[in-house]
Amino acid sequence: MTTYTAPVKDMMFLYEKMRNNKDYNEIEKYNDVTPDLVKNILEEAAKINQNIILPLAKIGDENPTILENGIVRTPPGYKEAYNKFIADGWQSLSCDPKYGGQGMPKTVSAFFDEMLSSASLSFKLYSELSIGAYNCIHHHATEEIKNKYLSKMVEGKWSGTMCLTEPVCGTDLGLLKTKAVEQSDGTFKLNGQKIFITSGDHDLTENIIHLVIARASDSPKGTKGISLFLVPKFKVNEDGSIGSRNGISTGSIESKMGIKGSATCVLNFDDAVGYMIGPKNKGLNAMFTMMNLERIVVGIQGLGISEIAYQNSVSYAKERKQGKTNNNKSTNGADYIIDHADIKKSLLNMKSIIEGERALCFWLSQQTEVSLNHNDEKVRQEASDIVSLMTPVVKTMFTDLGMEITSDAMQVYGGYGYTKDQGIEQLYRDNRITPIYEGTNSIQAADLVFRKLVNKNGDIINKYINMIKNDCNIEEEKIKPFLEDLNFHIEILDKFTSWIKEKIQNSKDDASAACNDYLKALGFVSIAYAWIKVLEVSYKDYDNNKGFYEDKIQTAKFYFKRVLPRMENHFKTAATGSEYIMNFNFK
Amino acid sequence: MTTYTAPVKDMMFLYEKMRNNKDYNEIEKYNDVTPDLVKNILEEAAKINQNIILPLAKIGDENPTILENGIVRTPPGYKEAYNKFIADGWQSLSCDPKYGGQGMPKTVSAFFDEMLSSASLSFKLYSELSIGAYNCIHHHATEEIKNKYLSKMVEGKWSGTMCLTEPVCGTDLGLLKTKAVEQSDGTFKLNGQKIFITSGDHDLTENIIHLVIARASDSPKGTKGISLFLVPKFKVNEDGSIGSRNGISTGSIESKMGIKGSATCVLNFDDAVGYMIGPKNKGLNAMFTMMNLERIVVGIQGLGISEIAYQNSVSYAKERKQGKTNNNKSTNGADYIIDHADIKKSLLNMKSIIEGERALCFWLSQQTEVSLNHNDEKVRQEASDIVSLMTPVVKTMFTDLGMEITSDAMQVYGGYGYTKDQGIEQLYRDNRITPIYEGTNSIQAADLVFRKLVNKNGDIINKYINMIKNDCNIEEEKIKPFLEDLNFHIEILDKFTSWIKEKIQNSKDDASAACNDYLKALGFVSIAYAWIKVLEVSYKDYDNNKGFYEDKIQTAKFYFKRVLPRMENHFKTAATGSEYIMNFNFK
Repeated sequence: MTTYTAPVKDMMFLYEKMRNNKDYNEIEKYNDVTPDLVKNILEEAAKINQNIILPLAKIGDENPTILENGIVRTPPGYKEAYNKFIADGWQSLSCDPKYGGQGMPKTVSAFFDEMLSSASLSFKLYSELSIGAYNCIHHHATEEIKNKYLSKMVEGKWSGTMCLTEPVCGTDLGLLKTKAVEQSDGTFKLNGQKIFITSGDHDLTENIIHLVIARASDSPKGTKGISLFLVPKFKVNEDGSIGSRNGISTGSIESKMGIKGSATCVLNFDDAVGYMIGPKNKGLNAMFTMMNLERIVVGIQGLGISEIAYQNSVSYAKERKQGKTNNNKSTNGADYIIDHADIKKSLLNMKSIIEGERALCFWLSQQTEVSLNHNDEKVRQEASDIVSLMTPVVKTMFTDLGMEITSDAMQVYGGYGYTKDQGIEQLYRDNRITPIYEGTNSIQAADLVFRKLVNKNGDIINKYINMIKNDCNIEEEKIKPFLEDLNFHIEILDKFTSWIKEKIQNSKDDASAACNDYLKALGFVSIAYAWIKVLEVSYKDYDNNKGFYEDKIQTAKFYFKRVLPRMENHFKTAATGSEYIMNFNFK
Repeated sequence: MTTYTAPVKDMMFLYEKMRNNKDYNEIEKYNDVTPDLVKNILEEAAKINQNIILPLAKIGDENPTILENGIVRTPPGYKEAYNKFIADGWQSLSCDPKYGGQGMPKTVSAFFDEMLSSASLSFKLYSELSIGAYNCIHHHATEEIKNKYLSKMVEGKWSGTMCLTEPVCGTDLGLLKTKAVEQSDGTFKLNGQKIFITSGDHDLTENIIHLVIARASDSPKGTKGISLFLVPKFKVNEDGSIGSRNGISTGSIESKMGIKGSATCVLNFDDAVGYMIGPKNKGLNAMFTMMNLERIVVGIQGLGISEIAYQNSVSYAKERKQGKTNNNKSTNGADYIIDHADIKKSLLNMKSIIEGERALCFWLSQQTEVSLNHNDEKVRQEASDIVSLMTPVVKTMFTDLGMEITSDAMQVYGGYGYTKDQGIEQLYRDNRITPIYEGTNSIQAADLVFRKLVNKNGDIINKYINMIKNDCNIEEEKIKPFLEDLNFHIEILDKFTSWIKEKIQNSKDDASAACNDYLKALGFVSIAYAWIKVLEVSYKDYDNNKGFYEDKIQTAKFYFKRVLPRMENHFKTAATGSEYIMNFNFK
């Protein structure tokens, strides 16, 4: 089985030393969230994740969630762990105190998301989508609805889902067929089928609050006729108590390659009573509020699984002796594989990506809080644009690199990585969903290129790149070699950006064929940007914690020498265009 | 479930048009292997693989091989299929007619290996290791042993294994502990444990002939004290009939991420009677004869799984409608995803790699035959050096790119790729063993760099690169742009080669940290070389088969524009050395 030690030290470094976003620090309500408080939270979080949730990973894999006589049963131990999870207040960590939440910022809750992803992604998904649904209701529903549903969801007694996908519409929601017919009392009756619904049904909570997109009977075709509905599994009485069963049944649950403890459901809606959330035909907007935050969390899942894969690889490499290193002068006896150049390189690759991602994610959490909570609307808007730009980047980079890292971890283990005992192959299987769900990584790349670079508020990508340039205007001599590398690659990114903007206008297929490459180029530069900020602190504060900062500096060195340069080829090949691709006919 | 149509057309193109190795064509015994005969064989092979073996893939995954009261039982249907497989003569395809084989060259058997890998890797492994054992016995054993064992193995009534790995020695065979004590009658008694033994036990054949490496009691430590032994599951009487059970038992079978139909066994040897094969203490040499051929076959496994993943992706992309392409002018209705630039790019990436690999493999099969069967010893030696050089390259490139292709196939399917129904996730899991077994891909890379570039026969890599340069000295105007690209990348390969040779002498850690990168650089250029040879024929023979050749030319274009350029970054990053890696201390 895998072992896990939550990286509290690295997280606290970020929280103490990297909380340097001026706008974020102006959000008054977070003044009380002191490093001491956060440290306490993270240490408690480490305990529940390491001790209670980590063992559920293997249990869930070996005893998948099942559908039995219409009831979805989670794996053994899930219910007890979930009850402790909500009793200890983890579900309410980031929620509004008005509804019983603890009001922690995303700079803290993102750390918890990472830990929980490391411990058990399947278990995490039961609470994760609830937070998505909570956010959506919190932002878009009437006071009446909020008062009726939110406190139970914050408490964790009720959970939530996001019901988007149907058999013929995954990426393309305009094709959806679920119908909502308005009733005389203002409620709706929903009919249709939703598939791939994570936590669509289960036995952990008393009620499940589905957020469902559907087409009202008099709405137009396509994406402009989609509204959002709240559809509870059990109807809720006026006094907030649970009433009769609504018209929702579980058709089946999916048999999957991984995350087997998570219930992925086919849900049938048969005259299910629903309540419209937000304005009619604006359902996608409301849903996307929640989707965007959720996509960042999927990125964090990739980061969390990378972290545990990395930790276990390092431990194994320190224990396993095999072959002689180049520096072994004895005629007999093998060395620990961690001393082999090739294994060392592989482990540093993981470490430099993981720590860079974590720093980038922390920076993005601050931006997200600014976008939601700053007093100044203009500041909020600007932060929001940056968050929107970076959402597909974080989702895609962290999950794709998560596959690279779990795969490399398996190689470190050799044959033992492919067998079940060590748990590495499970990380590899579990993580493999992350580049697929919440919009495949290709869809993220298209979203980035066609919707996020430039929007009604202006040239967002230019603002972002300029921000990097300004932030990286650092005097410290020792950072110069890193900055030279960064600037070299920013120049390439600048060229790639101009190229792709031109293609969006004049040759859309060229842009489409280049989306993934552009996202990767932007992603590698963004992680390098996060590393520069880490280096800035590392050199400034060096004498206060030499061992820690020296480790950071050496890890950064690897990133700049071996990881960042990958972006160059993405531009080079993308720039060959798409004519030879589009003209090809598959027989 | 997946579907599969064997690519007989592409294989016959290679066999008819690309069989242009002068030395190969001088091997007299293959004069009779006419295109008509090969076509008949491949068409029959297609039938058994498509109709009988393909369905076993899913069956084996859902009903893994089990160990029951000491007996290993293969999945339902395996036995019937295996009996048909041997009755139809597929096991004996490449074997010596002296022992009942059909004497087909590797240029033909490699095609069959590919098809069988596409249909079911788990099923394939039962016959594959037998051929490895057959080859080893055929090359190294006495006439007496050969006469006693080979015809049954060729017939397929008996199977074979390769027993190398032990709990503390995978990569590093010098550490092995299995002991062999010589008896007064010249036989040996073996004691020890072997792990990860593919087809180590099963119910498909009457006997299993294990080839076991072990240390004779008076042999030195390390790799210089290893001998090879033949150890049958059941002892064989003088008349060739099956005698009493030998001292071999199955301790357990592994529970694995994939290839669940294949029995991966822990074998315990308790006073098992064995017969020494080849000279004492030279066991590794003999074993490596077989390992090297086997490593190429593992590469072919990666190719076969890539092919079926590709075929299914194309079919799905032609059926699934989602989103509008850039050229869709209608206000309603989605397009087939195969018309999206991004999906098209992904499919062409697969196709250009697969067809390039198949052509390279065909070229290598000719070289292998020359190395084994040419009359002139010098010609044999030269071919053998090239085969040795390319063995780790083919093993690693084809399996790593196989993971890229099965992963991309899963992305094409989206959520349906992650669930069990479509069979794509199984291809992804099954293929994941290929970069691990028969020596992890990192070991292959170290083997290439430290043992294969230069050997006692000279500077092999230089000969190889010069051969490419000579072979690519083509006048055809239309090939010029491809050649320019190739030459650009050969120059990089030249520089990388000089760099790594210098590092092998003066800075071994730099070379160790660069092995994987060097292998990739060499691999991408080698596939490009194969494509140039295909292009040469395609232009020459163009008018005879326009559709087919146009498809080749367009596919090659993709390879040169989008795949080959990846090699550049491998040199660039490798050249940053290893000091910053070796100095790093993992806490």
